[in-house]
Amino acid sequence: MRAQDMISTHPHVRGNLNDSLIRCIEECYTCAQVCTSCADACLAEPMVQQLTQCIRLNLDCADVCNVTGRLVTRRTGSDEELIRRMLHACAAACRMCMEECERHAGQHEHCRICAAACRDSMEACEAAGRSMAH
Amino acid sequence: MRAQDMISTHPHVRGNLNDSLIRCIEECYTCAQVCTSCADACLAEPMVQQLTQCIRLNLDCADVCNVTGRLVTRRTGSDEELIRRMLHACAAACRMCMEECERHAGQHEHCRICAAACRDSMEACEAAGRSMAH
Amino acid sequence: MRAQDMISTHPHVRGNLNDSLIRCIEECYTCAQVCTSCADACLAEPMVQQLTQCIRLNLDCADVCNVTGRLVTRRTGSDEELIRRMLHACAAACRMCMEECERHAGQHEHCRICAAACRDSMEACEAAGRSMAH
Amino acid sequence: MRAQDMISTHPHVRGNLNDSLIRCIEECYTCAQVCTSCADACLAEPMVQQLTQCIRLNLDCADVCNVTGRLVTRRTGSDEELIRRMLHACAAACRMCMEECERHAGQHEHCRICAAACRDSMEACEAAGRSMAH
Repeated sequence: MRAQDMISTHPHVRGNLNDSLIRCIEECYTCAQVCTSCADACLAEPMVQQLTQCIRLNLDCADVCNVTGRLVTRRTGSDEELIRRMLHACAAACRMCMEECERHAGQHEHCRICAAACRDSMEACEAAGRSMAH
Repeated sequence: MRAQDMISTHPHVRGNLNDSLIRCIEECYTCAQVCTSCADACLAEPMVQQLTQCIRLNLDCADVCNVTGRLVTRRTGSDEELIRRMLHACAAACRMCMEECERHAGQHEHCRICAAACRDSMEACEAAGRSMAH
Repeated sequence: MRAQDMISTHPHVRGNLNDSLIRCIEECYTCAQVCTSCADACLAEPMVQQLTQCIRLNLDCADVCNVTGRLVTRRTGSDEELIRRMLHACAAACRMCMEECERHAGQHEHCRICAAACRDSMEACEAAGRSMAH
Repeated sequence: MRAQDMISTHPHVRGNLNDSLIRCIEECYTCAQVCTSCADACLAEPMVQQLTQCIRLNLDCADVCNVTGRLVTRRTGSDEELIRRMLHACAAACRMCMEECERHAGQHEHCRICAAACRDSMEACEAAGRSMAH
């Protein structure tokens, strides 16, 4: 990811980088890819009927992380209330997906990796939210 | 849109339709399209430099409405906390975009239509949120 | 959908509406919603393991239709080669999803409706592509 | 990005990794983030009216890269024709955005970085397409 390089060149941002927002962008994009991959791997498991809740939470988490990554990337245009609400929703999506993936982590390596990506993204969203609090 | 037809065939939903969720799905997809269109029309205006905040809020609102429409469509898999947080974030995105578009509604017909779509979507998200409250 | 109202107000478009592009936008957004709904309904079926290919094609088709709807909405900024390639890819995504859904249309009403939405969207993409040919 | 780790755990993929598809996924997600960032930075430039075509191509490229990254991640479910068409469309989106960003690379560092990301993503899509040819 080149999020930091890009944002340091933004006319409204120069010299005023918030590391926790950069980290949040990177973790959200990574988690979006991992959750998309985990959903597809779950669909290929012989016991797919035990993984349907996991697949749905993977799909939700991928979508929410994707859009949160976009909004934080464009944060200069959004007022802080919207960003905070999205970080709040994204942390919830990541937590739910993490908890469900952890239940299957012993059997499915993709769920183990996905739970770790969800944890990183959840913590990055929470830290980014704190960094914006007044 | 065929949201109602589809959802009435869902194995977990039959006979248990929530009209405010259906309406929320349709308004979110419509608003996502309208905001994408408004951003592009603003970019084509000769006075684009006065519309940059409007364009950003259009882009944010399109993205948030798109994903909210997806999550509500898949609501059976999400626990209610995530849906409520997304409806909350989406109502904020719609309100901000509506308020900005209203400032340009006298000069730009696309902003006038977009403000109306944002209001419909905002109200649909708020009503859907209330319908899920216990 | 309000696609036509919006596009008629675009500074670069006034008086030069292409009906097949408007229809393509509306069918793509509708199909994106229907496919998202069909994937979720399939996940809730007791015989989900027979529907995994259907779910994947639903997810692919929803994503491709979503982005094609956005690009056609913003067509003034894209040169025609990109739009044509996306319409070509989107018609393929719709055809594959339609063919798979048709195989389950007798058992699952959501697959029957989804196959019809995919057919409408496929035909709209093909017609839009023809309307742009020189 | 953890694309390689995830895909190596997929039940249908084990031991059969295609490096050019992995690289394509990573470059598409990176390019999607960079283009979103470049569009926002362009909107903040005092001479925004000279950058409107760049902003539109940034938005198109971000959307197409995002969805191409998702489809390639889910490639086991898509037949190869759809993936090839999307890689073809994505390479076009990246090329157009790259060419436009290169025109502004001397003045705007964000356009210089974005052109490089678009080049990497374009080449990765082309290589992935070749790797799938029979």
